Formats: sequence, structure tokens, C-alpha cells
Amino acid sequence: MAVNWIAPEAASLLPVAGVKIGVAEAGVRKADRKDLTVFLLDPGTAVGGVFTQNRYCAAPVQVCREHLGAGHGIRALVINTGNANAGTGTPGLVDARTTCVALARELGVAPEQILPFSTGVIMEPLPVDRIVAGLPAALADARADHWLKAAEGIMTTDTVPKAASRQAEVGGKSVAITGISKGAGMIRPNMATMLGFLATDAAVAPALLPALAKRLADASFNRVTVDGDTSTNDSFIVIATGQAGNATVSDLDGADGQALLAAMTEVARTLAHAIVRDGEGATKFIAVRVEGGKTTDECLKVAYAIAHSPLVKTAFFASDPNLGRILAAVGYAGITDLDQGLIELHLDDVHVVSQGGRRPDYREQDGARVMQQSEITIRIGLGRGDVAETVWTCDFSHDYVTINADYRS
Amino acid sequence: MAVNWIAPEAASLLPVAGVKIGVAEAGVRKADRKDLTVFLLDPGTAVGGVFTQNRYCAAPVQVCREHLGAGHGIRALVINTGNANAGTGTPGLVDARTTCVALARELGVAPEQILPFSTGVIMEPLPVDRIVAGLPAALADARADHWLKAAEGIMTTDTVPKAASRQAEVGGKSVAITGISKGAGMIRPNMATMLGFLATDAAVAPALLPALAKRLADASFNRVTVDGDTSTNDSFIVIATGQAGNATVSDLDGADGQALLAAMTEVARTLAHAIVRDGEGATKFIAVRVEGGKTTDECLKVAYAIAHSPLVKTAFFASDPNLGRILAAVGYAGITDLDQGLIELHLDDVHVVSQGGRRPDYREQDGARVMQQSEITIRIGLGRGDVAETVWTCDFSHDYVTINADYRS
Repeated sequence: MAVNWIAPEAASLLPVAGVKIGVAEAGVRKADRKDLTVFLLDPGTAVGGVFTQNRYCAAPVQVCREHLGAGHGIRALVINTGNANAGTGTPGLVDARTTCVALARELGVAPEQILPFSTGVIMEPLPVDRIVAGLPAALADARADHWLKAAEGIMTTDTVPKAASRQAEVGGKSVAITGISKGAGMIRPNMATMLGFLATDAAVAPALLPALAKRLADASFNRVTVDGDTSTNDSFIVIATGQAGNATVSDLDGADGQALLAAMTEVARTLAHAIVRDGEGATKFIAVRVEGGKTTDECLKVAYAIAHSPLVKTAFFASDPNLGRILAAVGYAGITDLDQGLIELHLDDVHVVSQGGRRPDYREQDGARVMQQSEITIRIGLGRGDVAETVWTCDFSHDYVTINADYRS
Repeated sequence: MAVNWIAPEAASLLPVAGVKIGVAEAGVRKADRKDLTVFLLDPGTAVGGVFTQNRYCAAPVQVCREHLGAGHGIRALVINTGNANAGTGTPGLVDARTTCVALARELGVAPEQILPFSTGVIMEPLPVDRIVAGLPAALADARADHWLKAAEGIMTTDTVPKAASRQAEVGGKSVAITGISKGAGMIRPNMATMLGFLATDAAVAPALLPALAKRLADASFNRVTVDGDTSTNDSFIVIATGQAGNATVSDLDGADGQALLAAMTEVARTLAHAIVRDGEGATKFIAVRVEGGKTTDECLKVAYAIAHSPLVKTAFFASDPNLGRILAAVGYAGITDLDQGLIELHLDDVHVVSQGGRRPDYREQDGARVMQQSEITIRIGLGRGDVAETVWTCDFSHDYVTINADYRS
């Protein structure tokens, strides 16, 4: 059960002019499962992406980077679940390229105009024949209103599909923004998420797409964590088809750029939060806000130390205000000149720690009351500067162990 | 149930001339529980220690550092369980000093000659009155053959006491080495362990004790992890009473120093391994060996990334050879110029990955066979240099969640 997240209605998701989506059952790992999704993009569409910083990145990530760099214009994405095509060496690269060649041939475009994505089990050979055989069915299914179907088509251990839409005014024109994401475990995106796809019909200068993707990721997917495991396959793709008729956005910090960025950030953050809300075994959605830091980096170090601590996460699962575990995580986060006498800790509205020690007026029952909630904000004051950062995570339950002990069976 | 570790016989633990130990029930947190332990050291005993690198260190750790620095000669240690006296601010420091003053008065020594230790729940006031009231009973109980009782007296979530002994020849004399440790969760010692006490009757130059403690910790307690949480209270103390009659060891790299170091390392490593074997919910004891690194630091980064990955640890719990999770951890460990095409992976004798990819001759059933064992070695080759490091850890089970969700109830 995801925490305060339900599947959106298909009708609530806005089509994006210039994008069609088809989904098929290719039998990659299991039969009778939507496991192959194709995005078809009109000519002239601008595409950018950010990818995992895991040095052991998967074959499709390597091919995506090449194809985005080739500059021929991206015309389609192809996504399979059931197999990550990671840890597969040279044969894995050949398989990813073979998939692109097959789809390019169907569409009459160059293989470099295809981006491949895979998610699922690591270190098993990709059943590329089944994927290629499934392409015609996916293409035959292509429609503009298949966003929810696509969100379902890319799920692995996710329990609910993740999709969101917004409309915005950009340069006097109404533009649509719709995106999907997937991921529930092996989530500590670093540059990107497991898989996220965000499309708009706004016109954006192609050269801006990499920066747009990076800024969106840093406000959303790069601020969430489930278990601290950065995947080999994390990919976040931003698509701008340019069919809304607005004057092309050529500066992200101009008025049009800011309007578009704000609306796209809302969608990206909703999708990133949905991943945490559906985190494997999650029963609580937790925001960790660190204030008073000297740098972004040190705020994130403290926030992630708290968000990754198994002891903190199991205490939240148990609704036990064992808040000393949070202080311990602050202490080992890696700020070597931290002054523990300046630390403040709030749990929602409850002030727990002042000047590094438990407040005399803190009452256990107040902490216990907040811990019962399904959404909680931990707020740490470092007393060192003016920088603040927020990271979102979930608790750590029996079901996390069950899901990850049984994943392949 | 600890993995291949049972409580030692009391008679198997060698008394160390110059050390007496008394244990009492002070009711620190719960009644009818041995929760107060006192070590009495003869005059002339040399003592050194290493402590947590957590910046949020507990009050007793701060007092230990002061008292070791004061140079008056340490005459006693006092250890309570049930309360860590951490996150307690200035009142906590006062409580730790009050404990030292009370014990010093009983013994007729200076307060600076006492080292205090606390372990248990964080951020609750230390019931210092009950500890002071319990001191006479602990002193009345002091005997040279109470090592096993002390190992029991310092347990918290430990399921078995941890103690070990060795005899060694140093400078033609037989010396005794006996130690105890505790800890089962919040274990990623960094400079030290939760609590470890190691004593010998060998004569060692007092100035060598800090270096001796550091070298022993780096070969033992600084190479184990259960959950990656570095405690606020980690302390490892080395005691040399000098009553064995050997010529004083004045150089750790000389023949006598090496003989002593080898035997003390064996005891320290046994005690550190015992903590992992008794790790909260542990069902498997896992050695992670990283070879072919350029530096110690990068080998440890990779080893700890694997040892801390919840996905790797749950796969080991499930005996599921989902070994791609190990490759993913290697990839995100933080070596930015890692060449994934050089990675090798062995699981015990089974060669799983060559040149970054799954070997054609690797068979799932071979991996599955090794995963069934209670003791497993993961061996990673980085192909970058000649440095190797080993870290020891355990798997991640349902019981870890149960223990840590219920710890305070």
C-alpha cells in the first residue's frame, strides 16, 4: 500500500501533442504482463536526460548517452521491464543496440534516433529476441492518451502506477506537461531516478534540454531515497515536442522559462514523491529538512545520513520516538567540525532538542503523537550557516525485507 | 541466535594479573539485570583507547578523552548499560563526572583516574543516583576471574556474551590476554567499537598504548559493520598491567612488540567478529574482501558499500544469488574512474563475473549452493592496483526490523 498515493484516472492525464505511446506484452520475464513500452516522438522534438552516476551503469544507459550525443534528433524510446541488461558485459551492449536497430527499421529512422531503457533483474542476459518480436504489437497500440497504460507498463515492484499532469501558461500559450515514473527499491538517485519520463508540448531550444533535465532532477528525483542503493539503470528523460505554439523558450531564467520550469518541477516532484510513497514496504512518508548548513553538500550529507539509517527508519516504522537515533546520524554524517552544542531538532511542530540536548519541556507523548502520523517532517538545525535542503524518504518495515528477500522467486 | 558463536566457558578465560572485575544490578533501566560493571586496575597499569568519530559523541566519551589526557594513571573503569548518556547536553556531562567522583571516593583516587562508559538508549537522562548507589555492591564483587560475568554485565541487545583469551610468549615470558566486547546494532565502528575492553599483564611502555589501541582497532573493530550506524558511544580500551615480568615492550615493530600485537590482534578480531556474528537478526557471517585497489580508502569504500547495501543484505538473508546487487554497490561506492570492464567477482570458490560481465560458465546453482552456507566470502577484484582490505558483516533479516522496532518497549 503506497502512502497517500493512488493511481490517477487515465482521463486526468493530459495528452502531449507530438507524443504517442504503445504498450505490449513481450514475455520478457513473465507471461501476461505489460513489459514493453514504446514512445513515438514527432520530428523536431527536443530531448534531454540525466543518468545514473553508478560507475557500473547498464548497457542501455551507455547507449542512451551515445545516442543523445549523436545529435540526430530522438524519434522513439523503448522500455522493457523484467531485465535490467546490467552486468551483462559486451553481449549486453550488443543486445541494447539490436533493440534500437529493430525499432529504427520499423520506423524508418536511424538507430541513433532511438533511446533504450531496461529495468528489472541485474546480471541476466536480455531476451532480446522476445523484445524485438514484441515491437510490432507495441507500435500498433500507439495512441496519445496511453500515459496511464505506459505508467503501468514500466512498473516492476511498484504497487501503483505513477503519473501526473499539469497545464501551464508559457508565453501566452497553454502548454501541457505529463510524466510517468517507476521505482520502489534500489532508490537513491544520483543525477536521476530509476525511470522517469516527462514530456511537454512547449517549444524549448534543444540546447537547453540537458540543463532543464538537470534542474528538474535536482529538485525532485535527486532528493529522494528509499534504501540508499543507486541503481545501475537510473534514467530521467525530458521531452519537449514544440507543438504548443509558444515562442521557443531560450532562457530557463527568463519569464517563460521560469513559468515552464515551475510547472514541470511540480510534476517531477509529484512523480519523485510517488516513488517514495510506494517505496518497498513503506508505511510512512518522511521529509528530512536540514537547515542552518554552510553548504548544500553538508546539508545533503546530514539529510541522507538520517534518511539511510536503518535504525531511524525502523523506529519510524514502529512509531517509536527513539529520536536519539536521529542525533547519532547527524553526528556521523561527516561534518568534522560540527558543534553538537548548536543542534536543534523538531519533529513536525514538536521541539525535541535545543543546543544539542533534550529540552526539559519535551514530553515523550508529544513525540509519540507525531510518530503515529503517515506523513512526518524531521527538521534539523545545524547552526552553521544559511543553507537548507530537503530530502524525502520512507520508513523501513518487515515488508521491505520480505519484498527484497523474495524479489526473484 | 548468533552465527557460529557460543558463550565461552568462564574457566577458559585467563585472569590478567592486576585486573579485578565486579558486577552489580543497579536497576539503571530494568530491575534484576546485571547493568553495572567496574574494572579495578593496579597502580602502574598503562591504558589507551580509541573512541567514536561520531561528532555527536556521548558525555562519557568526552570525559574518557579528558581523563586519558590528564596523565594521572587510570585506576578504574565503570560501565553501565540501559542508558547511553548521549544527547543529554550539559546535564549528561555532569552525570558522567558525578559517577567518576563517586567511584574515586570509594577507591581513594582522583576522579581523573576513572574512565566512565555508558551504553543503551540515547537522549534520556542518566539515572546517576542509582548508578552511584550500585557502586559498593560492584566493588564488593570484584575478583580476577569475573571476565565472563563482565561480558554478561555489558550486554544490551546482545544474545550471547563475548569474551576471548590467548596466551603468548613475549620476551621469554608467558603473558595473558583477555578481552570482552558488546554490541549488536548501531555498529559501524569508526575508530572503535560499541564497547571493547582488552587487557594483558604484559609490560608495555605507557606512551605506546594509544598506538597499540589504534593498530588493534584497525585490524578488528574498525573492519566490521552491522547496519552502518556509527554509535555515539563507541569505545575500545586497551589495558597493560605490566605484571608478567617481561622486559617492557617499547617498540611495537620489534620482536616482542610483534609477538604481543599478533596475539592481541587475534583476541580483538575474535571479539569484533563475535559482534557481527551476534548482529541483530543475523543469520549469516559474511566477509567482504576487495582486492586490486589503488588505496586502502578505495578498497574500504567498495567493501562498505557492499556491506551496507540493504539489497545485498536481504539477498543473503534469502540465500538468493541475486549477485547483480553486489555489482551495483561496487558501481556506486564512489570510485569515479572505475573501469567496470575490469571487475571480477567470486562467491567463495565460485567465479561469477569476469571483465565486468557474467561468466558464460557461471551456473545459478553454484551461486545458490554457496548462498546456503552460514559463512560466506564475497571477493571483488577491481583491477586497479595491489591493495586489499577485508570487512566483516552479516545479513539483514526480519528479526533486525523486529528488534529495532521494539527496542525500547
